[in-house]
Amino acid sequence: MDLATKTTAELDAHAAALQHDYDRLRGRNLAIDMTRGKPSPEQLDLCAGLLEAVSLNDCRGEDGTDYRNYGILDGICEAKRLFAEYMEVTPDEIIVGGSASLTMMYDTLAGGVLFGMPGGDGPWKDQMPVKFLCPVPGYDRHFTICEQLGIEMINIDMDDNGPDMDAVEALVRDDASVKGIWCVPKYSNPTGVTYSDAVVDRLAAMAVAAPDFRVIWDNAYAVHHLGGGVAAVKNLLAACKHAGTEDRVLMFGSTSKITLAGAGVAMMAGSLTNIDDAKGKMFVATIGPDKINQLRHVRFLGDRDGIAAHMDKQAAIIAPKFAAVDEILERRLGGKGIATWTKPEGGYFVSVDVLDGCATDVVRLTGEAGVKVVPAGGTFPYGKDPRDRNIRLAPTMPSVGDIRDAMEIFCHCVELATVNKLRRK
Amino acid sequence: MDLATKTTAELDAHAAALQHDYDRLRGRNLAIDMTRGKPSPEQLDLCAGLLEAVSLNDCRGEDGTDYRNYGILDGICEAKRLFAEYMEVTPDEIIVGGSASLTMMYDTLAGGVLFGMPGGDGPWKDQMPVKFLCPVPGYDRHFTICEQLGIEMINIDMDDNGPDMDAVEALVRDDASVKGIWCVPKYSNPTGVTYSDAVVDRLAAMAVAAPDFRVIWDNAYAVHHLGGGVAAVKNLLAACKHAGTEDRVLMFGSTSKITLAGAGVAMMAGSLTNIDDAKGKMFVATIGPDKINQLRHVRFLGDRDGIAAHMDKQAAIIAPKFAAVDEILERRLGGKGIATWTKPEGGYFVSVDVLDGCATDVVRLTGEAGVKVVPAGGTFPYGKDPRDRNIRLAPTMPSVGDIRDAMEIFCHCVELATVNKLRRK
Repeated sequence: MDLATKTTAELDAHAAALQHDYDRLRGRNLAIDMTRGKPSPEQLDLCAGLLEAVSLNDCRGEDGTDYRNYGILDGICEAKRLFAEYMEVTPDEIIVGGSASLTMMYDTLAGGVLFGMPGGDGPWKDQMPVKFLCPVPGYDRHFTICEQLGIEMINIDMDDNGPDMDAVEALVRDDASVKGIWCVPKYSNPTGVTYSDAVVDRLAAMAVAAPDFRVIWDNAYAVHHLGGGVAAVKNLLAACKHAGTEDRVLMFGSTSKITLAGAGVAMMAGSLTNIDDAKGKMFVATIGPDKINQLRHVRFLGDRDGIAAHMDKQAAIIAPKFAAVDEILERRLGGKGIATWTKPEGGYFVSVDVLDGCATDVVRLTGEAGVKVVPAGGTFPYGKDPRDRNIRLAPTMPSVGDIRDAMEIFCHCVELATVNKLRRK
Repeated sequence: MDLATKTTAELDAHAAALQHDYDRLRGRNLAIDMTRGKPSPEQLDLCAGLLEAVSLNDCRGEDGTDYRNYGILDGICEAKRLFAEYMEVTPDEIIVGGSASLTMMYDTLAGGVLFGMPGGDGPWKDQMPVKFLCPVPGYDRHFTICEQLGIEMINIDMDDNGPDMDAVEALVRDDASVKGIWCVPKYSNPTGVTYSDAVVDRLAAMAVAAPDFRVIWDNAYAVHHLGGGVAAVKNLLAACKHAGTEDRVLMFGSTSKITLAGAGVAMMAGSLTNIDDAKGKMFVATIGPDKINQLRHVRFLGDRDGIAAHMDKQAAIIAPKFAAVDEILERRLGGKGIATWTKPEGGYFVSVDVLDGCATDVVRLTGEAGVKVVPAGGTFPYGKDPRDRNIRLAPTMPSVGDIRDAMEIFCHCVELATVNKLRRK
């Protein structure tokens, strides 16, 4: 059944039936939240032993340092070794910090605005307006950082290989006010796209007008597969070294979605020049990260194999939730020509595109029926989806049962909003 | 024996004897660090039970919230209640954050530079130069924040009641570029001075030209007495409310020197307007603090009485160290007219003033004999002590035996540097 081929009378009848069913669904008074990419309690339960991994009389590092005291700006050596392996860099190319990579990214861009970046011509605040490229749909919190700091954002379309590199290369080549690009290279938020080798190579090799241009490489889902094993992404720092542009990239990661959200360990990596610069800026603002929590993580996770084994268990918990989302989308919307959606192999989201101009209505209807998703436009800079069509679903937190209920409602709302839209034409 | 009354020949002979003994002391190859205010291992050992206070299946808040997950920007309600009591504010006047109050203070001033403060005329970066008043001697890390952010610093002398308020009032009254003042109101770093009620009242009531003037009230040593009980400081926020200036003060505290340094809990407090503003700025940079560590602290410390009992144990450990410092200073330098020093009743430091122009030499000689103290000038903005006389001693970390060794050397170096200085006159 293709709605586009229906007559007005058929659409009216269909709308009436959909509205009737919608009123019944709304009467169920559900309260299901698919807004944020939050791990479920079952995922968090996998961390048994983490909180007991360090005791007060067992807080010394391998060199005898008492990790209960002040000091060590860039992370304990054990954590630098483990997370260097995780980030595919050397231990002197990493800073292991507090609990939030978002904070490290904010501090990085705020540091650019206040003090500038290595290779550049001073603080960005003295070069305003400066701009960042934002592959869309993307992560709202990245965009909020730019908005807060007064960094103008330029939308870049995503395709199946990553950002549209023709557009990226054209924009960075001549405009020295373009200071960077946000990238989530693996299982991208929300599209699930993993960057191709060609995209990575082009990011490393492209000519840039700004001498302090930075790729903010937020590898938030580096090991977060959905059962099929971890996708490979070419190492951008290695590619940049090969291209002679090693100061171009700043890489970020965290264990927020590996161990405990909010009580994990965050990290940034890059060239020695960039790491030295970051340490210099950090020194002013801190006496050091929570080393006890870093030690806890090292002891609990062990090594890269330990991380992989842990993530296999997480995949077993969340894969059925993604499967339920896809199954219901397919059954309810498949073949109707009114929505497309991603089938991610990792990450935390399913990205749905409805017909242009329908996303706001879908989100409103869904919300009024007790299913919360991110506001329409939330995946775009300034909260503005130019086509009003993208909706991000976050299936990890609710139970499979709740997801089934939520997705039935969601699909119903997609159909209702679409029919109403077609009737208004 | 007053060195000032000696003849040149007597000074020469005295110098030769001192130098001979100094060479012998240097040969002992000591390595004692009295640089930073770090707790000793024995103090940290008092936290038995802290790291085991929260287990994975016991992470829920009193309202059922799972503290292992994302969310809660301003601290868990249990921590807000405990530390509101500690800071003498209400729970809605506090933000409980990560592990470092220094980071909160940096973010506060960086936020002023980038975005401005409530009541002000926009970002400080658009009003440069802006200035801060710095009571001296003071805390080097405060001054480093200003220097990094390009905030000019103006020295204000400290007396036994706090900063010289005549000077403060004269500077803030007419100059709208003066945006704030650093204060450590209790057991001040390094002088140990506790602000008098009159100073607090004048800070609250004084006329200020800048509508966004802020007192940065770093109450780092709120409960850190040395055995004689906790000194009282008048509540500045309450005084400001009384004076109708409640947005003037931002108060900071942390458990870094109560529980574990670097793995504690930090907090800021102020008027609802200021707290709302801080939350708005923080929201962009974080998804929330480490709530597990906050819960650990609430369970371990319990309440204000629990904190007080814990700090009594700490006082029992460090008071003998301060007593050793004072005893040796008195025995070696008393009556010689070449040094004065503080006799703090709390905090982490003893502040020594030697004769003008001698501090750099004393620190150099002390360091070469194996006793590290903060570089001369370190207690002043830009690292410049105009009289080159102040030296900060941090006695908490070394053992009493090491402190005795270190202080014999320190006193010897004070005498040697002074005699050499007098001979050059």
